[in-house]
Amino acid sequence: MCGIVGYVGPRPVVSVLLDGLKRLEYRGYDSAGVAVVADGQLELRRASGKLYNLEAAIQRAPLAGSYGVGHTRWATHGRPTEENAHPHRDASGRIVVVHNGIVENYLALKRALEQAGHTFVTQTDTEVIAHLIGNYQQSGLRLAEAVRRAALELTGMFAIAVISADEPDTVVAARSGPPVIIGLGQDENFVASDVTAILHHTRDVVFLEDGHLAVARGDGVQVMDFAGRPAAPPVQRVTWDPIMAEKGGFKHFMLKEIHEQPRAIRETLAGRVSLDDGRVYLDPTKIPDSAWEGFRRVVIAACGTSWHAALVGKSVIEELARLPVEVDYASEFRYRNPLLDEHTLVVVITQSGETADTVAALREAKHRGCPTFAICNVPGSMAAREADGVLLTHAGPEISVASTKAFTSQIVALYLLALYLGQHRAVLSAADVRAHVEQLLALPTKLEATLGQDAALAELSKEFFRASDFLYLGRGVHFPIALEGALKLKEISYIHAEGFPAGEMKHGPNALIDERLPVVMVMPREAGNPASEVRYEKTLSNLQEVKARDGCVIAIVTEGDTQTATLAEHVIPVPAASDALSAVLAVVPLQLLAYHIAVRRGCDVDQPRNLAKSVTVE
Amino acid sequence: MCGIVGYVGPRPVVSVLLDGLKRLEYRGYDSAGVAVVADGQLELRRASGKLYNLEAAIQRAPLAGSYGVGHTRWATHGRPTEENAHPHRDASGRIVVVHNGIVENYLALKRALEQAGHTFVTQTDTEVIAHLIGNYQQSGLRLAEAVRRAALELTGMFAIAVISADEPDTVVAARSGPPVIIGLGQDENFVASDVTAILHHTRDVVFLEDGHLAVARGDGVQVMDFAGRPAAPPVQRVTWDPIMAEKGGFKHFMLKEIHEQPRAIRETLAGRVSLDDGRVYLDPTKIPDSAWEGFRRVVIAACGTSWHAALVGKSVIEELARLPVEVDYASEFRYRNPLLDEHTLVVVITQSGETADTVAALREAKHRGCPTFAICNVPGSMAAREADGVLLTHAGPEISVASTKAFTSQIVALYLLALYLGQHRAVLSAADVRAHVEQLLALPTKLEATLGQDAALAELSKEFFRASDFLYLGRGVHFPIALEGALKLKEISYIHAEGFPAGEMKHGPNALIDERLPVVMVMPREAGNPASEVRYEKTLSNLQEVKARDGCVIAIVTEGDTQTATLAEHVIPVPAASDALSAVLAVVPLQLLAYHIAVRRGCDVDQPRNLAKSVTVE
Repeated sequence: MCGIVGYVGPRPVVSVLLDGLKRLEYRGYDSAGVAVVADGQLELRRASGKLYNLEAAIQRAPLAGSYGVGHTRWATHGRPTEENAHPHRDASGRIVVVHNGIVENYLALKRALEQAGHTFVTQTDTEVIAHLIGNYQQSGLRLAEAVRRAALELTGMFAIAVISADEPDTVVAARSGPPVIIGLGQDENFVASDVTAILHHTRDVVFLEDGHLAVARGDGVQVMDFAGRPAAPPVQRVTWDPIMAEKGGFKHFMLKEIHEQPRAIRETLAGRVSLDDGRVYLDPTKIPDSAWEGFRRVVIAACGTSWHAALVGKSVIEELARLPVEVDYASEFRYRNPLLDEHTLVVVITQSGETADTVAALREAKHRGCPTFAICNVPGSMAAREADGVLLTHAGPEISVASTKAFTSQIVALYLLALYLGQHRAVLSAADVRAHVEQLLALPTKLEATLGQDAALAELSKEFFRASDFLYLGRGVHFPIALEGALKLKEISYIHAEGFPAGEMKHGPNALIDERLPVVMVMPREAGNPASEVRYEKTLSNLQEVKARDGCVIAIVTEGDTQTATLAEHVIPVPAASDALSAVLAVVPLQLLAYHIAVRRGCDVDQPRNLAKSVTVE
Repeated sequence: MCGIVGYVGPRPVVSVLLDGLKRLEYRGYDSAGVAVVADGQLELRRASGKLYNLEAAIQRAPLAGSYGVGHTRWATHGRPTEENAHPHRDASGRIVVVHNGIVENYLALKRALEQAGHTFVTQTDTEVIAHLIGNYQQSGLRLAEAVRRAALELTGMFAIAVISADEPDTVVAARSGPPVIIGLGQDENFVASDVTAILHHTRDVVFLEDGHLAVARGDGVQVMDFAGRPAAPPVQRVTWDPIMAEKGGFKHFMLKEIHEQPRAIRETLAGRVSLDDGRVYLDPTKIPDSAWEGFRRVVIAACGTSWHAALVGKSVIEELARLPVEVDYASEFRYRNPLLDEHTLVVVITQSGETADTVAALREAKHRGCPTFAICNVPGSMAAREADGVLLTHAGPEISVASTKAFTSQIVALYLLALYLGQHRAVLSAADVRAHVEQLLALPTKLEATLGQDAALAELSKEFFRASDFLYLGRGVHFPIALEGALKLKEISYIHAEGFPAGEMKHGPNALIDERLPVVMVMPREAGNPASEVRYEKTLSNLQEVKARDGCVIAIVTEGDTQTATLAEHVIPVPAASDALSAVLAVVPLQLLAYHIAVRRGCDVDQPRNLAKSVTVE
């Protein structure tokens, strides 16, 4: 979603701001702008489209200053034009605001300001914030106090950064919802919406709490809550290597992150499993052991790719811990009247830990008295801080909008949670857990073997990149993989791809099948597992039905599956694994296929249109 | 799926068979054939494609006979060619078999027969059945005994009808899975896979049990089980009016059935609700009152459109009876290891009562000791007979492959079930139930008003019938309606339409949006219901995001919604209703839109390609 950068210090401000915005590009945006103050004069540059448009505007009319703010905007209300781009000015033109989120009561505030004589030049809610702050400053308040008063009047979700020409070398930031990070330097300080924007300058950061504001100057940072009480939030050291957020030798972040999956999973497992005593170890949680033993139900809330991981998690938890699991879209969960009690564990899954709907679902569950557990990838994120228990995936920063390594790491995290529940509920013996841990530890090597299919999938993409539609089918734990494969293709290539349980084909989707429609069938089998074998046989029947209607089949199968090879046009083998772990292996060729098709179509793989990395508004 | 007709009696056999096959056309097929015996000579005619091809073949080479069988085939294994069409002959060429279903061990049987010197002319499993029966008859057995012996060797699902040139005026039928109905006449008898094939000849029918076979002659019918023990199944009188299975003044069955929805819902409610004492009355069940009071969980299994009804049912049951509900695809439920116990009510939903996966799910639940409840439309069907409790929707025969009136009737049936659970669990008072019943009773009149939009939707279809893709969005109870709207369009127009929860757009599907993509937003609101209001507001935000990316929006709204009208290109109003019942109203314009688009594209609305009415194989 939108990105915020602010800087105060001795370096060239415009360079710091543009550099930070570039590192936030991956989050998705469609216009951008910066504002700086030099010698008491506030100057703005804005442009629609990509950052190079903004850079060109700055080259045409250079800027300098000693402090400033920048913004990339992802349009929600109002089109992505230059006029709607941030920063937005107040009535005096001496204050500017950049803003992530949505102010819900902006129309009422705007009406009141208009009656008091204000005129507005945009339709945005952000301009209303600027005018409100300006009003308070005009009445003689310091900038921080003006921001605080204004914040109290806003409802909705907002992260803002504000500078004033009348308050030198000061950036004020406030948070109610979307994340705000303060980066601490030597004689300089940073404000950002995401740690990746400032990681190459400093690793010491403060994650601003909801309802707090920060005043950053060159010589220090003060934090207070919206009631004006000083706060002393902990300084956290981010251990991510900033190099990890660069492309290495890969053409795109997405391809790099696909190839990082073996490492991501090794790190997610590291220190959490023991073959010696056949146990899984999670970080300490606020959930007492008695609760772990007594859960009657698990509810998982998530969005998008994380929702697909949740569906795999449902299979694994039900199978290993024998607990019924319900999976819900976070955006649905939060607005219904879910049936929850203290024996229900509510799990949320979000890569960023900041997904607005998912964090809202977490809060709703806490509000109803349920123990909560978060699976996320960003230490210090909202979900990580607020849940009663956390399992951090150690996938490292995920830059590509289309999630890959976070997804497979989430599945492994859910597998660990299933084992943890199983051992607490005494459903699994140490020997059982040990057998599963052995399989988990073998997974990264199998993933490496699967990545060896990269060249074959690049070749396959030549045949299919012109298709306008795709179907993806699977049964059991491979149904969510079919959904995820379809989502990957849809996100980055704009091909209309859809996933279905293979058994549902006859109930409608079959009508789409003709000789122009590629059908991807996710059908690994686990030899000796009767449930897996029967699902495989039934999917093979579905494959024959597709063939009877001239469909073209790409099948993801277990190595050595000669039966499918005689029927499908294309067969992609993955190493043999248990049913659940074959899901992790099977998604890799689907990620690569989507990637190569998108590249061949000339799409902007890492920053697909209309999408943003972490969805911090609803 | 495939259709079977058999006849023995004084009428012109070929006419009776062709007429019966025509009445089964709605089930979907892609080849057809008949076989009759005259003067000890067996004659066959078969053709790929529609029935008029078969009629043309018969006109070229006329047929007569005194008994015979006919078949419409829906290809599963092997393409829909004339050679693969039924009937299939045995080695002697004096026996023919028509068959619905799949014989799973046919390859092993075929190999054994080939070693005994048989040669096969097709790749079908059905030819193997014919040879097997022929073998037994050659060894001196009567036809019925030969069929019985053969049936014992077959595994899988089959309904067969068999005639032999050597056994005059006899049709033998056997069932293991897909339905077989025997129609009883005066000096004549009928065999069929579906009661509609013979309803204009007789209303007295026997629903053959699984594992039974019937020997129909002109002078009577004998029934026995596969062990050879005689059986005396009850004769049932079907009260459906055969006229209901004709088109009336409508151009297609689908349009007729859309317009029958007010009546279907009135009849589904009739006799089951009482305003006087504020109670809902269901037919007696085998589930004791104590079980109704003590359920801890409901699991609903269904396929296709019925699965969408189940999602609406989940909302309604959770809200009214405060019981957690899990909805599963029947094809998934049956092959996993579901967590069930005697406090879990398992509900299955199937229009035909014969959907293979759904009936298998019902049996799996019974096998695990769960009380079971079926919602279906066909009295005497497998689901209706096997479940512990049944709620019959009184929608009348549904002929169109794309389900409409069955869907809305299923939602009303689920609403009744929710009230019944609520009153047993003492969650709802008589006053509560009465208030809901009043709303239900007002629904048919509101549906009639909604059907008044027919002409407007026909007009709207002119603008959209050339689209290649559609998105359908909704929140809460309107999300399954979005799924159902997308499925209707996909089934009959072959446009790639997909439904999403509106809140998921930002997590992927947004990438598809451009100026060529129509987006249907299902967004009625219930004034005064806070949850409904907030979902409406959030969906309105999503609408603005679609507009910001040049998407074209068709919104289904509550009458008087002027706010949406200023934003969406097209607005279709439906009468105000409670949130749950607005789902029933909102689907009607989506049915009509799909219908008019498909007509304008020249599609075969009542018999879409690749689909069949009731899916009696897996």
